[in-house]
Amino acid sequence: MSFPFRKMSGIVNIPILEISQEEFRKVMTERREPLVLRGSDLGSCTRTWSPEKLSERLNPRQVRVHVGQEQDLDFRTKNFKYCDIDIKELVKRAQNKTNEEFFIDKSEIYYLRSISGDSRNLQVSNLDQDFPEISSDFKIPDLFPPDQMFSSVLRISSGGVRIWTHYDVTDNVYCQITGRKSAVLWPPSQANNMYLQGDKSMVADIDSPGSEFPLFPVSNRWEAELEPGDILFIPSLWFHNMKAHDFGVAVNVFWKELESKFYDPKDYYGNKELVPGAKSLTMLDNIIKQLTLLPPQYADFYARRCVEKLEKKCYLKD
Amino acid sequence: MSFPFRKMSGIVNIPILEISQEEFRKVMTERREPLVLRGSDLGSCTRTWSPEKLSERLNPRQVRVHVGQEQDLDFRTKNFKYCDIDIKELVKRAQNKTNEEFFIDKSEIYYLRSISGDSRNLQVSNLDQDFPEISSDFKIPDLFPPDQMFSSVLRISSGGVRIWTHYDVTDNVYCQITGRKSAVLWPPSQANNMYLQGDKSMVADIDSPGSEFPLFPVSNRWEAELEPGDILFIPSLWFHNMKAHDFGVAVNVFWKELESKFYDPKDYYGNKELVPGAKSLTMLDNIIKQLTLLPPQYADFYARRCVEKLEKKCYLKD
Repeated sequence: MSFPFRKMSGIVNIPILEISQEEFRKVMTERREPLVLRGSDLGSCTRTWSPEKLSERLNPRQVRVHVGQEQDLDFRTKNFKYCDIDIKELVKRAQNKTNEEFFIDKSEIYYLRSISGDSRNLQVSNLDQDFPEISSDFKIPDLFPPDQMFSSVLRISSGGVRIWTHYDVTDNVYCQITGRKSAVLWPPSQANNMYLQGDKSMVADIDSPGSEFPLFPVSNRWEAELEPGDILFIPSLWFHNMKAHDFGVAVNVFWKELESKFYDPKDYYGNKELVPGAKSLTMLDNIIKQLTLLPPQYADFYARRCVEKLEKKCYLKD
Repeated sequence: MSFPFRKMSGIVNIPILEISQEEFRKVMTERREPLVLRGSDLGSCTRTWSPEKLSERLNPRQVRVHVGQEQDLDFRTKNFKYCDIDIKELVKRAQNKTNEEFFIDKSEIYYLRSISGDSRNLQVSNLDQDFPEISSDFKIPDLFPPDQMFSSVLRISSGGVRIWTHYDVTDNVYCQITGRKSAVLWPPSQANNMYLQGDKSMVADIDSPGSEFPLFPVSNRWEAELEPGDILFIPSLWFHNMKAHDFGVAVNVFWKELESKFYDPKDYYGNKELVPGAKSLTMLDNIIKQLTLLPPQYADFYARRCVEKLEKKCYLKD
């Protein structure tokens, strides 16, 4: 088997490696492509975070969750609400297909992406600070220099939840503790075909994007089926779309690959553009302002000149 | 016949119209595509600018000419020299295949693109000022508002001379007074395939560009064979390449289609970028500086984001 294995359809099977964290780290750093580490030690959480035990051990507290009527959450149509719920109640409800108590309707689905602080005082998520009563159950994989760690995020989802395609500016490992998930990823070089709005793709249905999104790469993508205990490496800027098959808990650990000066210091979610990227996009707005002073044919011409220069100076040569 | 006529090869025959200047002006303005006006009145020059008569009537003066050993002048390899010669002598030598008096060798070729002033005091070329003794022989076509006129340039070339592909930021009409020429043009939308260095294409051989220039549009181009008396409309930003079949004299008249604020006031040749275009290309250099602070994969990603935005906001929708 070649590494990684690309099917006739164009879909790449993300390699699943059963090796040590040390060996994995080496492959990860060299390849900078998605990889799954299977059979690694994530701590006692893989045994003790069953819904019942987790619910028992968590201290009661209000958390903010996405509550949706449809399984595919869509930020464009906003087919979900943000609601506050006690975390014990969340774990209870998220296991069930239907619930007698609900916000919207009986079969609503739940998704927690833990945040720290409140809307007036946002902080970077950190499992130790946010859920100290369970954080020692999870062993942060030894896959990056600890001083480069950015955040650790607890994720709880109902079966069926799919999160929209997006990218993060930091590297991350998605540690699937319980439950199974499908992960679909695309390389950063697909940026122009993703129909981005900020860090999110506007394409809700990644299998049949529809005529609005003719360039969306339906088959040119990387896939993995995650099982409990799996660690998925998502390199920075890789687009990813996660679909939960059943109730599951995950911890997502983010770290800064680059010097910290490149990251926006006010970035709490790890999704603000890198400083030089943000500056570039702002300067580009000024270019567009200049060019649109000209009649369309002239604007087109100079835009093409700019594009040619960008391609020549900044695109990776394959 | 459709208008214009595109051959199976992809080559477009530039329409040749035998209509009045008034009618031509209308078609020209509406289409903004290359067109030839044939049989129009250019003044007595079409009768009186034979080599003998022209030489007689011109006052002696030193002019600066391109002198080449090869017929295809190439700004990259600099296969020509700039030399000063009396204009009467130029007209004499340029008619001949070989000359006993020469700068480089017997079969050298000559090309005059008249300039005004000297290198320390450049001025915009103007036939009236530069060659008052013959300027009234040439009637400026009534194809644009006179107050938008930019320059009028006398061109004299030996048979065989080919001038490198380039574009001008002003509209122009190429008035072929004597001699025949092949004109090859490409639309501004080909900018990314022309391998530009400033306003010039680096591709010397437009028929077999070579492996260095894989995207150069060999067949997707517009062509016309110019005869004495023909007026070729070259819209601003259209790339053009002119090849003289025999000794010939032309007057090239340039004018500003847009408000004059868009043109660089220090532009003597009509080849400096339009002000918003120049600003954009300078800002783009700053973007490239920012992006190349990042590792190549990150630079590639943000360059693609910029390209997507430029394409979306500034490219003409077909």
